[in-house]
Amino acid sequence: MDYPQESFVATTFAPNSFWARRREVVRIQTLQHQLHMLKETGRYEAFKLKWHPSYSVPPTVYPIPNHQFWDSDVAKWIEGACYLLMDQFDLEIDAAVKELVQMIRGAQKPDGYLNIHYSVVEPGKRFTNLRDMHELYNAGHLIEAALAHHLLYKNDELLSPILKYVDLLAATFGTQEDQIPGYPGHPEVELALLRLYKVSRNPAHLQLAQFFIEERGNPKGGKGECHYFDAEAKARGESEHDLPMYFPAARSYWYQQAHVPIVDQETIEGHSVRAMYLLTAVADLVRICQPNSKTGIKFLPAVHRLWSNMVEKKSYVTGGIGAMKKWEGFGIDYFLPQGTDEGGCYAETCAAIGVMMLAERLLQIELDSHYADIMELCLYNAVLTGMSLDGKAFTYVNQLASSDQDISERHEWFECACCPPNVTRTLGFLGGYLWSHTIKDQTAVVNVHLYSSATLSLKVSSSTVNITQKTDWPWNGDVDFDVHTDGPPVGLELQLRIPGWATSWKVTPSPDKLYVRNGYMFLSSEWLQENSHFRLSCPMQPQVVRPNPLTLQPVAYVRRGPIVYCVEDVDHPWESNHFKVKQPMFMQK
Amino acid sequence: MDYPQESFVATTFAPNSFWARRREVVRIQTLQHQLHMLKETGRYEAFKLKWHPSYSVPPTVYPIPNHQFWDSDVAKWIEGACYLLMDQFDLEIDAAVKELVQMIRGAQKPDGYLNIHYSVVEPGKRFTNLRDMHELYNAGHLIEAALAHHLLYKNDELLSPILKYVDLLAATFGTQEDQIPGYPGHPEVELALLRLYKVSRNPAHLQLAQFFIEERGNPKGGKGECHYFDAEAKARGESEHDLPMYFPAARSYWYQQAHVPIVDQETIEGHSVRAMYLLTAVADLVRICQPNSKTGIKFLPAVHRLWSNMVEKKSYVTGGIGAMKKWEGFGIDYFLPQGTDEGGCYAETCAAIGVMMLAERLLQIELDSHYADIMELCLYNAVLTGMSLDGKAFTYVNQLASSDQDISERHEWFECACCPPNVTRTLGFLGGYLWSHTIKDQTAVVNVHLYSSATLSLKVSSSTVNITQKTDWPWNGDVDFDVHTDGPPVGLELQLRIPGWATSWKVTPSPDKLYVRNGYMFLSSEWLQENSHFRLSCPMQPQVVRPNPLTLQPVAYVRRGPIVYCVEDVDHPWESNHFKVKQPMFMQK
Repeated sequence: MDYPQESFVATTFAPNSFWARRREVVRIQTLQHQLHMLKETGRYEAFKLKWHPSYSVPPTVYPIPNHQFWDSDVAKWIEGACYLLMDQFDLEIDAAVKELVQMIRGAQKPDGYLNIHYSVVEPGKRFTNLRDMHELYNAGHLIEAALAHHLLYKNDELLSPILKYVDLLAATFGTQEDQIPGYPGHPEVELALLRLYKVSRNPAHLQLAQFFIEERGNPKGGKGECHYFDAEAKARGESEHDLPMYFPAARSYWYQQAHVPIVDQETIEGHSVRAMYLLTAVADLVRICQPNSKTGIKFLPAVHRLWSNMVEKKSYVTGGIGAMKKWEGFGIDYFLPQGTDEGGCYAETCAAIGVMMLAERLLQIELDSHYADIMELCLYNAVLTGMSLDGKAFTYVNQLASSDQDISERHEWFECACCPPNVTRTLGFLGGYLWSHTIKDQTAVVNVHLYSSATLSLKVSSSTVNITQKTDWPWNGDVDFDVHTDGPPVGLELQLRIPGWATSWKVTPSPDKLYVRNGYMFLSSEWLQENSHFRLSCPMQPQVVRPNPLTLQPVAYVRRGPIVYCVEDVDHPWESNHFKVKQPMFMQK
Repeated sequence: MDYPQESFVATTFAPNSFWARRREVVRIQTLQHQLHMLKETGRYEAFKLKWHPSYSVPPTVYPIPNHQFWDSDVAKWIEGACYLLMDQFDLEIDAAVKELVQMIRGAQKPDGYLNIHYSVVEPGKRFTNLRDMHELYNAGHLIEAALAHHLLYKNDELLSPILKYVDLLAATFGTQEDQIPGYPGHPEVELALLRLYKVSRNPAHLQLAQFFIEERGNPKGGKGECHYFDAEAKARGESEHDLPMYFPAARSYWYQQAHVPIVDQETIEGHSVRAMYLLTAVADLVRICQPNSKTGIKFLPAVHRLWSNMVEKKSYVTGGIGAMKKWEGFGIDYFLPQGTDEGGCYAETCAAIGVMMLAERLLQIELDSHYADIMELCLYNAVLTGMSLDGKAFTYVNQLASSDQDISERHEWFECACCPPNVTRTLGFLGGYLWSHTIKDQTAVVNVHLYSSATLSLKVSSSTVNITQKTDWPWNGDVDFDVHTDGPPVGLELQLRIPGWATSWKVTPSPDKLYVRNGYMFLSSEWLQENSHFRLSCPMQPQVVRPNPLTLQPVAYVRRGPIVYCVEDVDHPWESNHFKVKQPMFMQK
């Protein structure tokens, strides 16, 4: 089992390749810009635990204080910075990472607790509102930052305080009498704990993640044998009608995917980012325990069921998810308007990043190009769109149609700034999404999911296998492969994804027999020995694509290769929306 | 100025005419059935102010107790019964009306207060929650019941206690130091007070209605110079996030059309029945004060603006209004799905009844067939549909497309039973919608809005003018008119509505000159003296009608004359929705 956040180190993008250029912008421009925003907004120094004026500002999204994500904003930036510093060292970024790490260390309580809001604004209230507050979500991102930091610096400066915090969490949450039987409203710590477990091999990390996942939605899990969120709200003295802004009705726990246990969830509901982070963690749990284990057999069907409901009935043509602005998430089946003026189109950048995460995990459980197709669709059309060419402006919402009332535009930063650093870290470890591999004895099996000019270098016994792609993807569908081994010969098998959008494809020189399974073409060790240079051609034909008729969207899209094109008005004055007519037809006389 | 609830007495429907038969069903079946339901559910005896088990049941629609509309359910039934008893006396119905009146009289407090909930369930809490509770709404329906009762029985048995209650309301609400500066969350009392004023001529009744209308939405009206609903909620000790089920967010006062003063409202928003009842009252206020008065000039533009927004952008092809189930009301412009499985279609029966009320008022302010077209559209396609042929089953929601998840069907009764008795009373005074008239000296001007076999008898000085329509409307567009006067000749002018859907029309014998203004054809006194028999022909051609393309609804309707037809599946097994396809097109490989 592997994580793209680790495996990406084996990938080197060719200079001037499409992604090398994007990542260069992120490394040189975005990291600096976001560091500047962190400093300007007070986030950078927040771990010094001094009072900040914005702590007194009432919540934009009741009941969540605006500063409550600050821990994660900083953590995600650190994580992205650590990935990108591996390409090339940057003195200023390196210094900022180190200073932030020292501030984080200094913010930790003697018992290991580590959170800005509950240290400065509401001391003494820690772990009293897991439903709405992002305490454990922040903890998860701190864990991911620590893992990235450890990967780059090979020291425990950040990892050791985080491990201490995790020890506190493991002691605090669980089923024992003196423990809190709760779980986070916003999943993230689960997938982070499972990543941590792979490095730490500490069973407590696996157990805590598994507890959070299995306890979620338990109708009788809280003390007093009720839903934990009810028990917690009662303890806070809240009326059930004291509704968070994103609750359409009392106890709308489907918003947090906590209305019923995960295994009983029939359709994908609620906040789309939470759903993706949760299911990614569940898929990881399945991978760790093995799909055919008791845990695997229990959870995998739910993951497949919810994935299918999402992809077939609740996804936009771009791969984006989430039509409902109120809860930043899923509407009813096939409710997928183009813009907010038509009832909603949210498609949050973080949600598409989550779809990529989940697709990548499912690919490792079962190699099927369907998952890679969605992963590629999201990457080019719902994630890459989240950042401007200069790397200094970002989208939060990615509606398909801009409208008078709600013009699509990118912003330097957001009050809730989850998306910008999420794009940064995703592009930071992008190499890990291109291919996955397994090494058995003398043989490496490499599955190629995405195409871009890049080289994968794998140590196989005493040799190094280098697989190089050369291509103008996403503009051209020809990919030239070069395979060579430094050192004594070893086995290598390749499985190349045939894109779902490809109307035709071929490999030259052409193998006598073509083995294609689940959308991947198999190239044997023998054939590769004779053909170290070969070309995969997937001609990119322009295609007109339509959404499912049940979406009642009378629109068509032009798509070529992995890219869905957006047709803009040639002259764009918003006040004259030339598609509109004056009178409803049935009113005409 | 006239009210259809009074003018209908001058109309007699021809036996076996379309509407005579519908009204016969209501008189014989519906009144009995609804009386039975009132008794079975506890409503009938509720004014005895004894405890009823259902008073302990938690609200279906928080925070409104289910029994809270009981006063109005009884009042609306009394009102309808009184109208229909004028056609033909019915011993049992008459006895029930009289018993109910005695119970209502007995329920009145010494100071005049009259309300079931606040007398039995929450004594001492009267007038503390005008925003959510239906105290003043109930008062309004009691006033309307008293007026109908007075019209039939010519006594004050019900009117005098109601007048005493109104005196209490007039003393309680207003701008003086010792008064409550509030107004009802659900309008109704305003239009009832204005109807009462026409009979009582008591300025206090006009003033109270005008206060409720002008104060509504005042940002600094409450004691403490804040919005009254805020002041009230604060006094109740409520958190602003303690949300009524129909509030999508804190302080969603647009639900009650109280987000800003009426004159500042640009678009029609919120609960559709409340909007119609409110605007009907505003139109009545304009009529009473005259359109060109200070008050008329202040309010009429808002009524026209909100009417246009509704009819052009927020109405269904049937005339029904309200797409959003959560707040039983309006969505954004052009958001008009066919069914709940497509995101919503509410079109409550009471709302369409409200559209008819408002259209009728606007017709009296400005004779324009546009208003009568909408009135006719609603009557046949959004109100008549609210009751089954046998008069014993009703709709609350009138979605255009029935769906697996939410099958369109009629019910015997509802927990919140506003619609069934509303249809009863509407058909009770239907004659008042057919035509309006003014009498000046020796001349009567009669405007014919709707066509049906019926006779209008008007006293003009010492004579009686009889205008008779003979037609198979809505099945056939030929209408034979017969005009004759008993007594010395008097003047009569007719203005006949030319339906907007009519692709052609003619009058035979044909006048030399045709005067058509605002969709009404003028027939002079002279011409009528020579042509006491004539025919209006509006051939009913089947038409295919489409909703505005901006609704994104790829549907078409067949319409003939005033009726929009509903095309049902020939074979109706809900589980096999044969319009559905398996996979979204963009997922197909």
